[in-house]
Amino acid sequence: MTSEAEASPYTARLLVACRDRPGIVAAVSSFLHAEGANIVSSEQYSSDPTGGQFFLRMEFVADELLERRDGFERRFAETVAEPFEIEWELRHRGERRRMTILVSRYDHCLADLLSRHRRDELEAEITQVISNHPDLEAEVRLAGIPYRHVPVEKASKHEAEERILELLAETRTELVVLARYMQILSPDFLARVGCPVVNIHHSFLPAFAGADPYRRARERGVKLIGATAHYVTEELDAGPIIEQDVARVDHRQSARELERVGRDVERIVLARAVMKHLDDRVIAHGGRTIVF
Amino acid sequence: MTSEAEASPYTARLLVACRDRPGIVAAVSSFLHAEGANIVSSEQYSSDPTGGQFFLRMEFVADELLERRDGFERRFAETVAEPFEIEWELRHRGERRRMTILVSRYDHCLADLLSRHRRDELEAEITQVISNHPDLEAEVRLAGIPYRHVPVEKASKHEAEERILELLAETRTELVVLARYMQILSPDFLARVGCPVVNIHHSFLPAFAGADPYRRARERGVKLIGATAHYVTEELDAGPIIEQDVARVDHRQSARELERVGRDVERIVLARAVMKHLDDRVIAHGGRTIVF
Amino acid sequence: MTSEAEASPYTARLLVACRDRPGIVAAVSSFLHAEGANIVSSEQYSSDPTGGQFFLRMEFVADELLERRDGFERRFAETVAEPFEIEWELRHRGERRRMTILVSRYDHCLADLLSRHRRDELEAEITQVISNHPDLEAEVRLAGIPYRHVPVEKASKHEAEERILELLAETRTELVVLARYMQILSPDFLARVGCPVVNIHHSFLPAFAGADPYRRARERGVKLIGATAHYVTEELDAGPIIEQDVARVDHRQSARELERVGRDVERIVLARAVMKHLDDRVIAHGGRTIVF
Amino acid sequence: MTSEAEASPYTARLLVACRDRPGIVAAVSSFLHAEGANIVSSEQYSSDPTGGQFFLRMEFVADELLERRDGFERRFAETVAEPFEIEWELRHRGERRRMTILVSRYDHCLADLLSRHRRDELEAEITQVISNHPDLEAEVRLAGIPYRHVPVEKASKHEAEERILELLAETRTELVVLARYMQILSPDFLARVGCPVVNIHHSFLPAFAGADPYRRARERGVKLIGATAHYVTEELDAGPIIEQDVARVDHRQSARELERVGRDVERIVLARAVMKHLDDRVIAHGGRTIVF
Repeated sequence: MTSEAEASPYTARLLVACRDRPGIVAAVSSFLHAEGANIVSSEQYSSDPTGGQFFLRMEFVADELLERRDGFERRFAETVAEPFEIEWELRHRGERRRMTILVSRYDHCLADLLSRHRRDELEAEITQVISNHPDLEAEVRLAGIPYRHVPVEKASKHEAEERILELLAETRTELVVLARYMQILSPDFLARVGCPVVNIHHSFLPAFAGADPYRRARERGVKLIGATAHYVTEELDAGPIIEQDVARVDHRQSARELERVGRDVERIVLARAVMKHLDDRVIAHGGRTIVF
Repeated sequence: MTSEAEASPYTARLLVACRDRPGIVAAVSSFLHAEGANIVSSEQYSSDPTGGQFFLRMEFVADELLERRDGFERRFAETVAEPFEIEWELRHRGERRRMTILVSRYDHCLADLLSRHRRDELEAEITQVISNHPDLEAEVRLAGIPYRHVPVEKASKHEAEERILELLAETRTELVVLARYMQILSPDFLARVGCPVVNIHHSFLPAFAGADPYRRARERGVKLIGATAHYVTEELDAGPIIEQDVARVDHRQSARELERVGRDVERIVLARAVMKHLDDRVIAHGGRTIVF
Repeated sequence: MTSEAEASPYTARLLVACRDRPGIVAAVSSFLHAEGANIVSSEQYSSDPTGGQFFLRMEFVADELLERRDGFERRFAETVAEPFEIEWELRHRGERRRMTILVSRYDHCLADLLSRHRRDELEAEITQVISNHPDLEAEVRLAGIPYRHVPVEKASKHEAEERILELLAETRTELVVLARYMQILSPDFLARVGCPVVNIHHSFLPAFAGADPYRRARERGVKLIGATAHYVTEELDAGPIIEQDVARVDHRQSARELERVGRDVERIVLARAVMKHLDDRVIAHGGRTIVF
Repeated sequence: MTSEAEASPYTARLLVACRDRPGIVAAVSSFLHAEGANIVSSEQYSSDPTGGQFFLRMEFVADELLERRDGFERRFAETVAEPFEIEWELRHRGERRRMTILVSRYDHCLADLLSRHRRDELEAEITQVISNHPDLEAEVRLAGIPYRHVPVEKASKHEAEERILELLAETRTELVVLARYMQILSPDFLARVGCPVVNIHHSFLPAFAGADPYRRARERGVKLIGATAHYVTEELDAGPIIEQDVARVDHRQSARELERVGRDVERIVLARAVMKHLDDRVIAHGGRTIVF
């Protein structure tokens, strides 16, 4: 979702999380008013209006915001964040996140993300694509993006993860996207990765968690197949869900045909999840997500 | 959309419309904070952040709100509404709108609304059903709702409209729903009705405006048929659209089958539009609607 | 799906199941041609073209078909069914199945089916509604349908099932529809019921099988909720799926709101499944269904 | 839709069109049986069972079919096609159509088709991409496909169309796909092109035919935007519709955002239409299509 004011260089997004209590919105909006900012959009959610967790996302425009950023942030910290014990983040339009894509051999999700990147649909810089296979190198290089081949053998899995962590650190990656990366990441890797990891699973979770979901969906005779984009956590296929969608199938379709239909769902679901994350619209909270 | 706090008797909705300028959200939320209210949800839209029209819908809870309503409203008028030249409305949860349904012979939309009314899905009191035919009287009376038969002949159309206006006035109707009412309302009627009129049109407007949309959809070979719920204006089938949806059809389906599929779309689209209107989520503005 | 020829009194449906081998379609269509029948629609499926199971559904029109039915069926048996070892069924348009609805307290699925019955959308005679509660009697009786109250207590469950079996036998029921019937039917009941039983489950099976699916869906943070219509088998919530659909939900919606959205999915999914079953379009085979 | 038998080299598709009369299916299926063929799938449609137009699509497998193709076709012509005055076509699996894509500057539909081509989802050989702009050359060449730049100026439109016709003839093109080609093709071009032309229009036709549909959709306040794939005829945006789909939008979305959402609908709708055409599932008849 993009407001009419999207083009302004002085648009910024303020993200707030704190314990819910009266007066937060008044404090934030009074502060923005005093700073001469005009609120463009505002979304909020409270897990429970009496004592739950409160989340706020505001887009606003303010003249010369970039030039007076330090003062703006210091004043917000002093007059709002500290009194209300708020966690917050301010992101200026144009501050693109640094994103790494991990992929194996299937290229449909990767191709979709690269194509959106070329059309400037993703508010991100793709710093590299890492793969355990060499197959997709030409496609990635044509897009002007570095391709890192990090093979993964059973015996070398630990070394491969170390190498990936190095590459993420070197590129100061702020988001990892698993675009059909067919390796399970270890708990140690996840503990050290230091940024969110978004995965696409090719089923309507929690149905058909684990391997080979299309074959199991076909055997169970479901009438819709789906895909789920979620944040990766230690528990396999159980992280907070960001986005899901489904497509209708019928008894005539072979396993191979279900895969083809499924690919179209997978790539749109992953793309929507990545776009929403980059737009600061997704908040993980208690095993679920709030999507503004 | 209903928040967790939906059951509280002290939940209210504040609706605000005014020319957009900085400080409105700050003023409203500071006022609510000062009154001890806790904001449960808040949605806003500006047609243009510099000088456009601004719309705000806030749900909040506040102790003893009903008991101190008059003072609350007077203080809001003085400290917020007058300085900002705001149009506003305050509706307490449980203040149900008085609604009249107009219907002809098709009962699928009517039956759907009555069924939702019985399950308490509509935040409304259905004060009467008016029809130009006697057919649906038993169904309506079983629901405990008065049924008014107002026949419409070509020569008596004016008298019929006068009678309907009387019935609306007597029941102090605040919303008229045309649930497949097959008469065109005159400009004079619309000028005098004094409340919003919601209609369901059995096509995906603006395609197939006018009569007999399913036959024309079939002849054109469209692959989806739709329905559109809109506010009625003088210009036929051109009022602001509240809700639309479609269903997939194919070449094998006869005109009669398209009608059957269409009925399922019509009733869900009308129901969603009515529920959103009753929940104060729809604002008509410049020929379009904002739906929070 | 209904062909243009739907209105003819001499339309019939021929259903065929047998081991797949060459020549079946030729034999059936040559027979129909010899009988002066015109094929209106034809659908077929083979689980494996070399030695799998073959299924065929043909609609055809033939003059005076009802008058010469016995001879037609005898000739089909002799010249086609016996040589090819075919299981088959012939149903003339207008031969309505006798259907019993079981319901508890929720009436949204029941009301939907009654409303379709009134509009003649169901090719069935509803012979009775059986409920373990008295609540919905007036609604059913208004539709001119007998209402049987068969209370179910823990101690009397066996007696209740016996009573239901009696009522099904007395009415020569050919289809049982569980329209949110909140009792689990015993294996003994299912072994003796003697006709298909269709159930609506309020989740996208196999996700959230068992009790309380909306609460669990909300806790898991899914972005779509669903409903599944399936044939009932001994294994709870595991019978062959006939139809499924989903609706989009978000984090703002309370458990109560999910239920409201879910009701709209449940009733359309159940209605579609019942209509397809009555139209002889559903074949259960190996734990799945073929839906023509 | 693909059957389990898709991999067999001896799978073929038989397409039949003729005046409907009894015995056609019997004749065709008896012929196939006599030739030792096993019918894998069969779909048929009659515009009117008494004297309308009849269409049949059968997939079958038969040993050594390619080797005995000539005799097979001659016998079909003599024993079935001539007596029944049938128009027919036989296509062997693996006989890929020769396809040309025309494109301007937007690459989302082109990239989608190229990506499917790489994954072997299209049963076609892409012989060339023709564009009135040079922009997309690198992308096309990476896919190993020739790129022809044919600039179109107002004065040179006729020459450009002549050049395109030459290129189509040289490559023996059997299908032209307009993947957001922003030039209107002249009646003369269409009369001489000699093969079907599929176009993607960025609205839910017949709504918003003509230029600038997203802007007009936004002004009209529709709640769904769509895309339509259709065969091109002389009358602009009025050719037989092959496929349509829609996506939900709301008041918050700018014209630019509608375009982004629209692109995702356009490319999936065009891809589905092209795949169905290549799979011989689309028959244009009387301004509409039959899609098996």
